[in-house]
Amino acid sequence: MHTASIIAVGTELLFGQVVNTNAAFISERLQLLGVSVLYHFTVGDNPGRLKKTLSRAAEESEIVITTGGLGPTQDDLTKELIAELADRKLVRDEEAYRRLDEIMKSFGRINYTENNLKQTLLPEGAEVFYNEVGTAPGFALESGNNVFIALPGPPREMKEMMRLSVIPYLAKKSDAVIYSKMLRFYGIGESGLETMLLPIIDGQTDPTVATYAKEGECAIRISSMRRTEEEAEEAVEKVCRSARELAGEYIYNEEDKDYPEVIVELLKEKGLTLAAAESCTGGLFSGAITSIPGSSAVLDRTFVVYSNKAKIESLGVSSETIDMFGSVSEPCVREMAIGALARSGADIAVAVTGISGPGGGSEEKPVGTVFFAIAGKGRECISRERVFRDRGRRVNRHVCILELCDMIREYLSQREF
Amino acid sequence: MHTASIIAVGTELLFGQVVNTNAAFISERLQLLGVSVLYHFTVGDNPGRLKKTLSRAAEESEIVITTGGLGPTQDDLTKELIAELADRKLVRDEEAYRRLDEIMKSFGRINYTENNLKQTLLPEGAEVFYNEVGTAPGFALESGNNVFIALPGPPREMKEMMRLSVIPYLAKKSDAVIYSKMLRFYGIGESGLETMLLPIIDGQTDPTVATYAKEGECAIRISSMRRTEEEAEEAVEKVCRSARELAGEYIYNEEDKDYPEVIVELLKEKGLTLAAAESCTGGLFSGAITSIPGSSAVLDRTFVVYSNKAKIESLGVSSETIDMFGSVSEPCVREMAIGALARSGADIAVAVTGISGPGGGSEEKPVGTVFFAIAGKGRECISRERVFRDRGRRVNRHVCILELCDMIREYLSQREF
Repeated sequence: MHTASIIAVGTELLFGQVVNTNAAFISERLQLLGVSVLYHFTVGDNPGRLKKTLSRAAEESEIVITTGGLGPTQDDLTKELIAELADRKLVRDEEAYRRLDEIMKSFGRINYTENNLKQTLLPEGAEVFYNEVGTAPGFALESGNNVFIALPGPPREMKEMMRLSVIPYLAKKSDAVIYSKMLRFYGIGESGLETMLLPIIDGQTDPTVATYAKEGECAIRISSMRRTEEEAEEAVEKVCRSARELAGEYIYNEEDKDYPEVIVELLKEKGLTLAAAESCTGGLFSGAITSIPGSSAVLDRTFVVYSNKAKIESLGVSSETIDMFGSVSEPCVREMAIGALARSGADIAVAVTGISGPGGGSEEKPVGTVFFAIAGKGRECISRERVFRDRGRRVNRHVCILELCDMIREYLSQREF
Repeated sequence: MHTASIIAVGTELLFGQVVNTNAAFISERLQLLGVSVLYHFTVGDNPGRLKKTLSRAAEESEIVITTGGLGPTQDDLTKELIAELADRKLVRDEEAYRRLDEIMKSFGRINYTENNLKQTLLPEGAEVFYNEVGTAPGFALESGNNVFIALPGPPREMKEMMRLSVIPYLAKKSDAVIYSKMLRFYGIGESGLETMLLPIIDGQTDPTVATYAKEGECAIRISSMRRTEEEAEEAVEKVCRSARELAGEYIYNEEDKDYPEVIVELLKEKGLTLAAAESCTGGLFSGAITSIPGSSAVLDRTFVVYSNKAKIESLGVSSETIDMFGSVSEPCVREMAIGALARSGADIAVAVTGISGPGGGSEEKPVGTVFFAIAGKGRECISRERVFRDRGRRVNRHVCILELCDMIREYLSQREF
């Protein structure tokens, strides 16, 4: 089984009310299994067009995966049409019935309708995938050279079913086990990274190395499909070691964690608390840090000092500094970090001030100019200037958050902490 | 022209590295033009499969819109295959050439390559859509009963071309003008809103009323397609008046603006400055406010007071209050707002403290319990408790931002300001 097509079913997708994120998710997972995705299709709840699409997909690819159209309403036709194409009857699955009955009763619904029971009917001979986070079960049905895999439409249900049932099912069919690892990089662009990693990217078959560009950072996924978990893991680790040798200085995490999460864990591990002084990021850095559950053990407080008055009053930046160098300057950002450290009692403090655009740039300090500083108890204050290529206000501010995280990681990696 | 299919071209989409958001965007706009979208397709940079998909789409729908594959590389084949299907030659478009030449020279590239020039070749007889934010032009090409519309893949370029060229082109073809308006609602759910608006939703033909659920809020788009702009606008305004009568108390904006933008404009208009004290939102409220260009005229400063110590030291919350009622309490949030007002010198100050989860909930104060307060110079402090249905940490925090915006709008609507 080497080729697949993915069909999303639902009129709301064709109305543009919902973006189809399922196809990309499934495609990425299939890549890891060595399956090439040839097409994505989206069709509405229209039996004629859905049936036509199912046959076309089955003609051109071995695996046909559908998302959506498994629910209890009249509109939900995916299962019926797959059964029709594969020439199977729909029969009640007792385990599916038992589960639905249990859920309905837990909701206090004793006399549920015929419609609800529709969800317990499945094509004869299908391997059933029970739904751990919703009601509609999915399934895999082999027919001739094809296998049809039907999944629920809600992304949370689909993802869980992919993880628990579909990936193991496909891996078993190919008599293989998959192991993969996502490495996250900061401080280098995608094409620069590709050049550095050429020795492990070039001519790859297994493990495969795929690069991903994210906003302001990039990532690689190393994955291997082997007979046993151990073999696959060993193969991935070997490539991982090469990646570390080639570009280790840019790796900030090997478990696909976002930078703020890495920082929260690092600070927790060291038992250190953090304060921040944010100007151009306006609170987004703290917002990102506090998006991590349990970050209250780490973040003491943040001063969002958007006005000059606030910088002076809340942090003790001197008005002379602002008069002489401006609020977007290295002397100002240093006073901000030192002020935040002194006024919070945290172990370390970071500060950022810059020009996020679209307005406010000048020849000397164009949009994208940002100053960063970090200060620690009994440590000297370190500051740096960055001039980011202007990618719009939102991205400019996001990159500042990554840079602050990077400064913290660097600062903590030094001996004294 | 009443039916359309949308084809996204690009191997990165089939790898799952990029989510296809273009199809939903274009579909929504086509709906407004009275065009039914029958299919979305995604194909890689594979000439055989792309050509097959183009012919199928053309067989089943009148309008065929492609995104992607217009660039300068060998992989980019969309234009060539459309020309082949329509039996046209590719000819150089002089205006496209002039524009490309200008851009390349502005980058200091005098001798650009043959590849770059590929972008100036367009099918004979096509109506060219010049690209205002990128280099590759798009076009519309009529052929038999079909019109092929080719757009660039990057969403920013595609959206701008839709707005400036495609929508006017299609409206002209249907000899009609479209007018639409997006109303944003806060404080009511989508199904509640649908019930309230039933008189204008039920049996609608023109104007149409579509409802959208967003995180923590919802919206309706009212649109009309008529002979003249005036007729369409009048028809939309009439339905809009009914919407105001039926659910006006929940409308916060009629120009499809996000709530933070509405608040920044409102404060600017009144010449008032704002301070904030954030606990559970951890800086995200200020982050949202400062995402609006020009918000520096409005936001003075924010105190992100995650720890109790920070609440006491930075805002003057009394330790007795925290001991007696806890930091997630109405007395605490009031002291936070009053403290932020006094210590900032801003005209109004808001405060928020709550339990965003996943941990920290109790029987008395479950996850989703949040206290809000607003204080203004010479005005009494107003506070409220909300218990949001727990939808996960990220959504819980997002809803808090909307609630803060809503409190500000309500506070400002009162006579004294």
